[in-house]
Amino acid sequence: MSSTQLTTWFNVAADSDFSIYNLPFGVYSDANVKHHACSAIGDTIIDLFELESADVFNISRTVLEQPVLNDFIALGKPVTNAVRLTLQALLTNPDSVLKTNADLYKRVVKKQSEVKMLMPVKVGDYTDFYSSIDHATNIGIMLRGKENALMPNWKHLPVGYHGRASSICVSGHTFRRPKGQQKPADAEVPVYGPSKLLDFELETAFIIGKSTEMGESVSTANAADYIFGMVLFNDWSARDIQAWEYIPLGPFLSKNFASTISPWIVTLEALEPFRVKGYTQDPPLLPYLQYQGDKNVDIKLEVAIQPEGGKPSTICTSNYRYMYYTMEQQLAHHTVNGCNINIGDMMASGTISGPEPHEFGSMMELTWRGTKPLQLNDGTERKFINDGDTVIVTGYCEKDGKRVGFGKSEAKVLPAN
Amino acid sequence: MSSTQLTTWFNVAADSDFSIYNLPFGVYSDANVKHHACSAIGDTIIDLFELESADVFNISRTVLEQPVLNDFIALGKPVTNAVRLTLQALLTNPDSVLKTNADLYKRVVKKQSEVKMLMPVKVGDYTDFYSSIDHATNIGIMLRGKENALMPNWKHLPVGYHGRASSICVSGHTFRRPKGQQKPADAEVPVYGPSKLLDFELETAFIIGKSTEMGESVSTANAADYIFGMVLFNDWSARDIQAWEYIPLGPFLSKNFASTISPWIVTLEALEPFRVKGYTQDPPLLPYLQYQGDKNVDIKLEVAIQPEGGKPSTICTSNYRYMYYTMEQQLAHHTVNGCNINIGDMMASGTISGPEPHEFGSMMELTWRGTKPLQLNDGTERKFINDGDTVIVTGYCEKDGKRVGFGKSEAKVLPAN
Repeated sequence: MSSTQLTTWFNVAADSDFSIYNLPFGVYSDANVKHHACSAIGDTIIDLFELESADVFNISRTVLEQPVLNDFIALGKPVTNAVRLTLQALLTNPDSVLKTNADLYKRVVKKQSEVKMLMPVKVGDYTDFYSSIDHATNIGIMLRGKENALMPNWKHLPVGYHGRASSICVSGHTFRRPKGQQKPADAEVPVYGPSKLLDFELETAFIIGKSTEMGESVSTANAADYIFGMVLFNDWSARDIQAWEYIPLGPFLSKNFASTISPWIVTLEALEPFRVKGYTQDPPLLPYLQYQGDKNVDIKLEVAIQPEGGKPSTICTSNYRYMYYTMEQQLAHHTVNGCNINIGDMMASGTISGPEPHEFGSMMELTWRGTKPLQLNDGTERKFINDGDTVIVTGYCEKDGKRVGFGKSEAKVLPAN
Repeated sequence: MSSTQLTTWFNVAADSDFSIYNLPFGVYSDANVKHHACSAIGDTIIDLFELESADVFNISRTVLEQPVLNDFIALGKPVTNAVRLTLQALLTNPDSVLKTNADLYKRVVKKQSEVKMLMPVKVGDYTDFYSSIDHATNIGIMLRGKENALMPNWKHLPVGYHGRASSICVSGHTFRRPKGQQKPADAEVPVYGPSKLLDFELETAFIIGKSTEMGESVSTANAADYIFGMVLFNDWSARDIQAWEYIPLGPFLSKNFASTISPWIVTLEALEPFRVKGYTQDPPLLPYLQYQGDKNVDIKLEVAIQPEGGKPSTICTSNYRYMYYTMEQQLAHHTVNGCNINIGDMMASGTISGPEPHEFGSMMELTWRGTKPLQLNDGTERKFINDGDTVIVTGYCEKDGKRVGFGKSEAKVLPAN
């Protein structure tokens, strides 16, 4: 995407996440459509399967009517990027077939509010990193004190672990508060019951767009070729279950009951104009983790809690640029041992906290383990997430009047059953 | 399967893993067949797709010509168990169509040595447990000393973590020694290079045969309905990479480069006659983990190392019955928080060590971190696994002259590239 100013003949609000510079990919369904690939502009979706009836992309329509985008993504970036640029041309050219053919327009253009967005990809494997230095430091201080906050390995490699793919859901779902074992500090033995310390984690995730074979490694220089795009990611966490179970092999039931992503995959190409310089990494990293250029991304992130029947209260504003490690470093690390990756794999950032208290990306940090409750607009307090709360994560990039956003990732907590 | 003595008209060696009591499921390929579901008897396979041309099972042949068994398994136990019992009847009845129809026989029966076995299922999510008390104790002693060998949570829940599904391979593959970061004890900073401490882990895995929705839990009493069968599992591990990376979120690159399973899924029904009493679990467990009946399984396990061009040396004999937690408990724990499971998910036992030194299920334990090298039959020593070594895991049940075995899980280590 060049820095040229583009004008679309569509009516797009200035603060829309879905400007002419974005054109993300997703999958939708409505009363007449089981599942079609789509893009978004303003408050509408563009049905790519229907649009291709006019042969504008010159690709097989079959990949556009699948339940997920994996086969579309498998066409490769030369093809998928061309689809996006062609769509951009159609939406800027007032004489394009989409503008002039009323029948086509009617089949292709639908209001976002009238369709249901589906999971955009089938996730093969899901990995969660732990790459925000402020988050890792905050958690470290709570567990081990200021002097030993960061583990010795933290500044040498992007710590990561495998998560559960089956329970990643698309925005708009509900889930039950998880039950399980917890060990209260004053108890001799663990107890069983609903988690009392349910938390969100403000994250993003990147989606793999190109597979490798076992034994192959991806360099930081080539990593972008393997990253199709990004989504918002809420890594729901039950802190009481986590504290009791996670030693020595990591989080398990405290995380695998649900994760929530935003439905639109914003392509890496749409994010390129918002690249910024990454952290100064000191001590220096081993050569396989070093990289050139501006590889961080300026993505403004926000979290709100909406109580049952109430209005959302913003509780956190953070930014993806607070990540210590870049996506390219995470992917180079993930594959340095020859671990193979597949199209649709999802790799989450880890909680993205900034240095200021209002920038902390979890209730654990925002309320400092529940010791400093947050006040919502309706006057109620939160130490952690209550039943009936909807947690809404939003995010967007903005620069020189151009906005590229993610929409939202939201999910509502139902009482344990 | 009853305790009745069955006689097949097939020629089956007394020490064959694939007796008339077994009849496992797998997928094979050869010059003429891309992928067909199959079973095994003696040293042959039974092509189930070809056999069903005679309409013996009364099921759709489509599920028998898929690359994996997931769709077959999805038919449900009432159907898949009936397929197995029908096959057993065909193989015991000397007047059966398989015995009397020479053309059918020729299409259905092939030598195991002349076909290639494929990955039997598409693994959605893979979980690894840590449920052998001798293994956890051994590792604990090495890391923390005898007094604190077991973590406080270990006897209250089956510790588990998520692993990488993409790199699970079927027996007969090779893989490159993984590279990555290690931090030698005497080094100030980590170094990069091929792992020096490559290890195997003797495990089994069970395969999910019935899905759940998010929010559902499976009780220990019902767990067997959700378990299709078992395979042998080698959880390859790079100990030097693991030691440096695993705190605080668990193993990652030290495990996700390769795992090796045996190709035949031995059904839970075939294993029923070999059930034995489980460990006495003290302290008592929370009610959701308690169970009735004999839920452990007596599976004799063995590991051999075969050096390049040499003969195998047995280095370990263990038994699945050393597991402290049963599969039913593992599954009940995994789903107690509402985590959903899918057909084809694989849940591994964790390293299965017995109390005696020759029963330890990893080089880490067998050589006690490399301090007591093992001697192979060819006179060479091993502290860990060398390039060119093939590690062969075998396992079988035997009781009252009836044998039900798994075949083998073997893979060869190639030098790092």
